[in-house]
Amino acid sequence: MNFASDNTAGMAPEILDALVRANDGFALGYGNDDVTRSVERRIGEIFEREVAVFLVPTGTAANALALAHVSPPWGAVFAHSEAHILTDECGAPEFFGSGLKLVGMAGVGCKVTPDTLAETVSHREGHAPHQVVPAAFSFAQASEAGTIYRAGEIAELASLSHAHGMKVHMDGARFANALVRLNASPAEITWKAGVDVLSFGATKAGALAAEAVVFFDRGMAAHMAERRKRAGHLLSKHRFLAAQFQAFLAEGCWLRLARYANAMADRLATGLAQAGRTPVWPVEANLVFIIIPKALDARLKAEGARYYVRASDSLPDGVTIGSDEVLIRLVTSFATRESEIDHFVTLARKA
Amino acid sequence: MNFASDNTAGMAPEILDALVRANDGFALGYGNDDVTRSVERRIGEIFEREVAVFLVPTGTAANALALAHVSPPWGAVFAHSEAHILTDECGAPEFFGSGLKLVGMAGVGCKVTPDTLAETVSHREGHAPHQVVPAAFSFAQASEAGTIYRAGEIAELASLSHAHGMKVHMDGARFANALVRLNASPAEITWKAGVDVLSFGATKAGALAAEAVVFFDRGMAAHMAERRKRAGHLLSKHRFLAAQFQAFLAEGCWLRLARYANAMADRLATGLAQAGRTPVWPVEANLVFIIIPKALDARLKAEGARYYVRASDSLPDGVTIGSDEVLIRLVTSFATRESEIDHFVTLARKA
Amino acid sequence: MNFASDNTAGMAPEILDALVRANDGFALGYGNDDVTRSVERRIGEIFEREVAVFLVPTGTAANALALAHVSPPWGAVFAHSEAHILTDECGAPEFFGSGLKLVGMAGVGCKVTPDTLAETVSHREGHAPHQVVPAAFSFAQASEAGTIYRAGEIAELASLSHAHGMKVHMDGARFANALVRLNASPAEITWKAGVDVLSFGATKAGALAAEAVVFFDRGMAAHMAERRKRAGHLLSKHRFLAAQFQAFLAEGCWLRLARYANAMADRLATGLAQAGRTPVWPVEANLVFIIIPKALDARLKAEGARYYVRASDSLPDGVTIGSDEVLIRLVTSFATRESEIDHFVTLARKA
Amino acid sequence: MNFASDNTAGMAPEILDALVRANDGFALGYGNDDVTRSVERRIGEIFEREVAVFLVPTGTAANALALAHVSPPWGAVFAHSEAHILTDECGAPEFFGSGLKLVGMAGVGCKVTPDTLAETVSHREGHAPHQVVPAAFSFAQASEAGTIYRAGEIAELASLSHAHGMKVHMDGARFANALVRLNASPAEITWKAGVDVLSFGATKAGALAAEAVVFFDRGMAAHMAERRKRAGHLLSKHRFLAAQFQAFLAEGCWLRLARYANAMADRLATGLAQAGRTPVWPVEANLVFIIIPKALDARLKAEGARYYVRASDSLPDGVTIGSDEVLIRLVTSFATRESEIDHFVTLARKA
Repeated sequence: MNFASDNTAGMAPEILDALVRANDGFALGYGNDDVTRSVERRIGEIFEREVAVFLVPTGTAANALALAHVSPPWGAVFAHSEAHILTDECGAPEFFGSGLKLVGMAGVGCKVTPDTLAETVSHREGHAPHQVVPAAFSFAQASEAGTIYRAGEIAELASLSHAHGMKVHMDGARFANALVRLNASPAEITWKAGVDVLSFGATKAGALAAEAVVFFDRGMAAHMAERRKRAGHLLSKHRFLAAQFQAFLAEGCWLRLARYANAMADRLATGLAQAGRTPVWPVEANLVFIIIPKALDARLKAEGARYYVRASDSLPDGVTIGSDEVLIRLVTSFATRESEIDHFVTLARKA
Repeated sequence: MNFASDNTAGMAPEILDALVRANDGFALGYGNDDVTRSVERRIGEIFEREVAVFLVPTGTAANALALAHVSPPWGAVFAHSEAHILTDECGAPEFFGSGLKLVGMAGVGCKVTPDTLAETVSHREGHAPHQVVPAAFSFAQASEAGTIYRAGEIAELASLSHAHGMKVHMDGARFANALVRLNASPAEITWKAGVDVLSFGATKAGALAAEAVVFFDRGMAAHMAERRKRAGHLLSKHRFLAAQFQAFLAEGCWLRLARYANAMADRLATGLAQAGRTPVWPVEANLVFIIIPKALDARLKAEGARYYVRASDSLPDGVTIGSDEVLIRLVTSFATRESEIDHFVTLARKA
Repeated sequence: MNFASDNTAGMAPEILDALVRANDGFALGYGNDDVTRSVERRIGEIFEREVAVFLVPTGTAANALALAHVSPPWGAVFAHSEAHILTDECGAPEFFGSGLKLVGMAGVGCKVTPDTLAETVSHREGHAPHQVVPAAFSFAQASEAGTIYRAGEIAELASLSHAHGMKVHMDGARFANALVRLNASPAEITWKAGVDVLSFGATKAGALAAEAVVFFDRGMAAHMAERRKRAGHLLSKHRFLAAQFQAFLAEGCWLRLARYANAMADRLATGLAQAGRTPVWPVEANLVFIIIPKALDARLKAEGARYYVRASDSLPDGVTIGSDEVLIRLVTSFATRESEIDHFVTLARKA
Repeated sequence: MNFASDNTAGMAPEILDALVRANDGFALGYGNDDVTRSVERRIGEIFEREVAVFLVPTGTAANALALAHVSPPWGAVFAHSEAHILTDECGAPEFFGSGLKLVGMAGVGCKVTPDTLAETVSHREGHAPHQVVPAAFSFAQASEAGTIYRAGEIAELASLSHAHGMKVHMDGARFANALVRLNASPAEITWKAGVDVLSFGATKAGALAAEAVVFFDRGMAAHMAERRKRAGHLLSKHRFLAAQFQAFLAEGCWLRLARYANAMADRLATGLAQAGRTPVWPVEANLVFIIIPKALDARLKAEGARYYVRASDSLPDGVTIGSDEVLIRLVTSFATRESEIDHFVTLARKA
């Protein structure tokens, strides 16, 4: 019953096989190999557009490189207060961005509304040069609460951002999970909706360590190669990074893995709801959050369940965590088994 | 005949096997797993000392993180002018080090002598606060020319560095290649000789992407965890990084791989010398440099040989590159085959 | 009727006289002159302690240099959400601090309470290395709302900060205004209460451009000289910076100027209260904030009054700004004349 | 006999008078005053072009702000090895430029030749993304050796720089001294010759602390206001910075002061040559360098002469400093008196 994170799973078999295959023979380093070229083309196909692609080993690197590239040092990057870039990256965006400023915003279910964005940005304008300059809006798809933005929501937020001269960054560490839930194409929920740059994650979805920074306007990517290199994120045996993505994106592997993880989350959510423990937010990706008594928390852990207790200021109206309760996060992945879920649900059933 | 770099080879079989084995089951992310603990202990055993270990995916990351941790932003880091950190990392040390200054020094065979170091450092003292402050001496073992420093040489340079308040960093991207050539233990050529922090490389030696920053004084490593994280270099599925090192350091694998690569370099050097093309610098690791006519360069490439032409200001006295000649770098690895070498030597034979 | 800022005034006569006197003859540059030494000693006398002093031309420089010196790049600096360092320095602390993170906190009258600080800091602990590390607490004395902290309040906040391993920084752009209001010595409201480093302002108080970073533990100031120099804040004709402070601190000049400015604020506050416009926050320094109808705002400006409209989230409970009202900030200085105040009060009187 | 630096002098009387006059009444802060507007216009007139002007208090700030604005973090800035930006600013360009790299070049008399620049730049190309990218060429006018570049030399260097995609920065800490020596207009030796951005110095020439960053293409200055502010270099009582420049540039004051300083240097050079001590480099600005026996150095100092001993690798061919000799730098200014010079020459006369 390991629901601690989607990164506690190993590699999906397809990815491991790809690494084995990629180990044959010699290949030029630093991305000057055929597999890398092939992955770049494949990502372009998926997004129905010429794109600029930069593979890196971690999501924090992808996010920080992307944000630093679209914001000057005196820029403000707006995101939800509980976004990974604000709370879990130890200041990576500020480091890569030479001291840019992240501005947190409230919002239920870790989602930002256009009204909130508009109001927050407006407070950062009109006081030049004493204030940092609005530079980018960043949002996670799926969000840290496991919720997702519809194409129309993205379009509204992006349109607003562009009107204020800002770029739009999507943190897609769980992009596949969001995509397969929506009745939309990759293009429709990214550049067609106004996203300028995407952190396209494969690691949580089943890779060893592989993320792609994808610029939908190739001109915007100028000198990103230097930025990545000087951050130590250009792998010398780059073919192995590319091989992970090649397998991930071949024959619908990524969609299959994501659908499976989401289905496990649905099964968990349904079971928990039936057991009297309805998730606090809509379960739209592979994350399930429930509030449970501390006593149950202790019992679940004693039974071997693995997950994290979380704090959140973005609970829905009316939902509160009692003093003897905790909010817990349950994450499913390609490696989650139905039996684990069913066992967990049984344990969690209300007396 | 691929002599382009030791990073054009793939993974050594032992490393690949380890990745396959590591893929079993769930493991906590971010280095909170058993394999990581085991690797930390193993590195301590090898160096006969309690150490602080930080695994990262690239050598540039290892070097830049290490240097940033031992130099303040107003520090000067002294190294050979042709050191990787000065010429091939696109300013990574400056980026990680918040604008620290790298000061290049001359020296035959990419090695710095104590006299040169002493003189260079002295020019950076006595003019506070207008000048950056001597903070670290960094040297590559093996060097970019494939030469190596003896324990006594290291001790002299380190002693001098410490006398000026500087820390000593060893770029050990090819540490194993240097070690097996010397009649010395890992401890003897590192902390016993005065090295404070080591970039311990496994990638060029046969790993997929695995380097370790090793601090010999654990106190010096305080908050390196945060520095690594905010640089995006803390891998979530960290067990795979650790698994590479575990296999690398098990049962002498690393020494065996390095001895083989060096033996291939020796075979190449001997063959070339017999063919009338004596290497310009002593061949002490897995790098062989020779000067050849441009016509031969073209012929070798036409025959399928892969290598890079290099420029260098650290040729031995009396050695020059004629206008119709080039200096070429030949790199061997665990994957080099004797037949490739023999074929190359035959082609390179003087008329 | 210029109440726009204390920096719209020129120099106090004593400061100008000092510049004229300082212009005599030659003096070594970069602070190696007698006047600078004298100022350093004088500041030590005032604070009853050996201190390390660094003069700089702006308050933003003083704050950013101080914060960067007490926080690592992965540090979090806690301050009121409306603190100058968060809202008016265009990211200077982040720039000087290599990407440190400022964390805003709420609090009535731009003051932070120990409870708020304790709770906010606790959210930034226990998640290493994914989170930035609590490094410093910074507060303004007087605050941006013109309120001041009592010695006991400072001691409580500082004690709490130290218990969490944080340093304490006081932004004293209006230190003199706060000091003369309190029945306390400079030492009592700084290092004796736990303040580690102070931005000691003279500019708003009557200097041309002169601020001092004062470290109460000289050891904490190591290499601040280099930090200042590389920020371009070491003036070559440093004697003129020192001369301003020399005059400012001679014969109680600074206290006299501050008392006058405060008295003008008091007169303004009293007059406005009598006129039916009670200030929203206690008037404890040289700042007066009132809420007025937009129609009055227009009339005041038409009559030549100069001031800024402000927004604030730290109004006292129950105080709100109506849709046809504005919050205005009125700043007095050594140059404010009673007649201006009386004229303004007359204009502002409620119908 | 104070020849230590042009910054050991105080303010020229015209500058001091301007400060006194500027102290009258209230003025908006941060450059929103009439004097600042007037100075911007005046600088445009002088350079016969619309320019963007940013006043700052130090030359280090001007240089570092300018370079950071024309070079990305992964940029290389080429300059003479003994340039102030490399040797005397404690890494300010690297700090402001988020870790950009300064590349030193050799050249007699602290001047860089086109051949040297071309060769040095060529070594930094063709190895992307492993190398930093040529971004700017910076040169001092007058140079640190007191030599000056002719308009034709500048045009050649600038043309070469532009051909490599680099911007051209002139460090004009002693711009006036160079200008009055040349038979050329300000425009002819700056933008007409290809200079993109100028650090225009007034401090050494007689101001208290006033330098201007001048962009000849206003578009290149976008967001420099934010860069200056976040560096703490936007003075609140900005009128006093502007007032210095206003007086400096009024009625030929700056040219008169520079001519006087240069004339003093000429008198010194002529006297020393007649005394058997010919300056090592042509005396073209207000700096005179001679080689003297250590015994004489001691005697001069004992007699009250103030100057610095310097080291240099850019001596003319054939000129060497003997083991019992020193190279000394003598700087004249608007405040130098003929009698000091004549006394010094007398003392320096060869036995």
